[in-house]
Amino acid sequence: MTSNRPDVGPGSATIATIADEVGVSMTTVSKVLNGRSDVAPDTRARVEASLERHRYRRRGKRQSVGAEQIDLVFHEFNAAWAMEIIRGVEAVAAASRIDVVLSQLGGAHRPPAQWLDVVLARRPLGVLLVLCNLTESQRQQLQRQLIPFVVIDTDSATSASVPTVGSNNWNGGQLAARHLLELGHRRIAIISGPQDVLCSRARAAGFQFAHDEANIPVDPELVRYGSFYVDAGYQHGMALLSRPDRPTAIFAGSDLQAMGVLRAARQLGLDVPRDLSVVGYDNISVAAWLGPALTTVNQPLRHMATTATQMLLDLARGVDLPTSRVDLVTELVVRESTAPPPPPPG
Amino acid sequence: MTSNRPDVGPGSATIATIADEVGVSMTTVSKVLNGRSDVAPDTRARVEASLERHRYRRRGKRQSVGAEQIDLVFHEFNAAWAMEIIRGVEAVAAASRIDVVLSQLGGAHRPPAQWLDVVLARRPLGVLLVLCNLTESQRQQLQRQLIPFVVIDTDSATSASVPTVGSNNWNGGQLAARHLLELGHRRIAIISGPQDVLCSRARAAGFQFAHDEANIPVDPELVRYGSFYVDAGYQHGMALLSRPDRPTAIFAGSDLQAMGVLRAARQLGLDVPRDLSVVGYDNISVAAWLGPALTTVNQPLRHMATTATQMLLDLARGVDLPTSRVDLVTELVVRESTAPPPPPPG
Repeated sequence: MTSNRPDVGPGSATIATIADEVGVSMTTVSKVLNGRSDVAPDTRARVEASLERHRYRRRGKRQSVGAEQIDLVFHEFNAAWAMEIIRGVEAVAAASRIDVVLSQLGGAHRPPAQWLDVVLARRPLGVLLVLCNLTESQRQQLQRQLIPFVVIDTDSATSASVPTVGSNNWNGGQLAARHLLELGHRRIAIISGPQDVLCSRARAAGFQFAHDEANIPVDPELVRYGSFYVDAGYQHGMALLSRPDRPTAIFAGSDLQAMGVLRAARQLGLDVPRDLSVVGYDNISVAAWLGPALTTVNQPLRHMATTATQMLLDLARGVDLPTSRVDLVTELVVRESTAPPPPPPG
Repeated sequence: MTSNRPDVGPGSATIATIADEVGVSMTTVSKVLNGRSDVAPDTRARVEASLERHRYRRRGKRQSVGAEQIDLVFHEFNAAWAMEIIRGVEAVAAASRIDVVLSQLGGAHRPPAQWLDVVLARRPLGVLLVLCNLTESQRQQLQRQLIPFVVIDTDSATSASVPTVGSNNWNGGQLAARHLLELGHRRIAIISGPQDVLCSRARAAGFQFAHDEANIPVDPELVRYGSFYVDAGYQHGMALLSRPDRPTAIFAGSDLQAMGVLRAARQLGLDVPRDLSVVGYDNISVAAWLGPALTTVNQPLRHMATTATQMLLDLARGVDLPTSRVDLVTELVVRESTAPPPPPPG
């Protein structure tokens, strides 16, 4: 968000300046500013270019006397951790007396076209996107309206130019594997998240790295990918633990997956951690209360949310961010579900 | 919301009518309508009384071209079930293209004064209150602005005149106790929620009723109250299970409490359900994934939320509700944590 255009001072233009420059009426400029759709695409583009050139800043942003609002948009409500994000956002917003408008995209990773119309008309201070992102044209429209946005992203897939808060997935994978290797495990399985999600591959890469460092080969048969939910953990867990050469430890892609692995182990009569060590990922609050309490990688969701909200409010105030991509650190939380491996049979 | 005043037709008055009648300027009426604070209390009261007498309906409610909004206000974000409520509200709101503005009161059961100013200025379609309620004066102010509200209440403590969606707590308590009695348990403990919350006492009353019906006395030593969180379940669980005459079954006030009881049992070397049966309350999604999967009373949180949101939208459209208090039914979900009691020692 730093300016490298010394030719036009930010915020010096009025609607009249823009209208003059483009050769349209002030009403047309106003329509573009208000996100109205009854403007020819070509005209809109020229007005927006002029607004951007002048770094036009709207005066008296909202007509309403209500509190300012920010939009919090989820790709979907994942019960396990959406609440952590909501809590973090709400805490920062409430402290600044800012309302949070909540929505979710029903699993889509891009908001639909009409979503932007509503947002532009409502004029929030900014938009927080959780595990979803904008199309290039949506991004440009928000930028031209000077509505900032920040992505909360466990996926690490966002381009560097988009303000993003994530966490270090590679490090998380590496920490989990190193812990299990240090306990003496040599056949460790990983069930990561979906293979098309970058964070899953980053964790698997960290897992591989820890093995390489310790000179322990990874059996490719023990590397799995699945959804982040309980069922995937259960199904991969059953498959892995039914093998004659079953692993002595499983690193799951989420705490929910780990719960599925624990269920599979119980069903097969395996004691955790005596017969099998299990490491989760996320550190949702339930993880501490399971029997056995789950060793897991802490993904600082609430902290990610407060950081992202703070970044958004800074951007809304016109503060330049020192950096647009922040990855918060992941940490291993050792509880009861990991122990040295059982002695080899026979 | 039914009218029993045939003298003034609803919605026939204009701001001018009101101003004339009260003897103030139209600006003053407008200020009252907009929730502005720069109106003398006495004047405000007279204007509001006149607005109410005329059942004044604002035209062109919101100046903004954005989507309509409803406010969803939580007493606090209880991670375990707030998400279920949010999902239910969001589903109904999104289907009607209505935005949800989220806030929480940090544990307070009444919104602070400034909360109402912001809401009145923003003019939502309506307000949904979860486990919290309004002061009489807040209620009147919303009513005079024709902003309806509905309470989602597991507490059953709301007065009958306030539109409320709850669930049948007495029935839940009775179902849980009857299930355990039918399995053959005779020493059953109950850890209910906080004693000052009506739902806790309603569940305990249902528990007592099932015992009375079966002619089994309840040992008063086995009736406990505590917070709905894991710790309370753990502490009461440890105390109850350390007794020489320990119960063979525990009915907990929430699934989180039940997780605390499971932890206490594990720590004392008791197997669930062989040595101890445990019943939870709520049926949060985690309940099904625990080891053992938890037998629990299903409180239909998401359904409560969709019902309340639908009621709110009906009220906002001026539809009279057939009934202002809806209690949805609770059901027992039998899983793995309950079984017949162990044979008596010796």
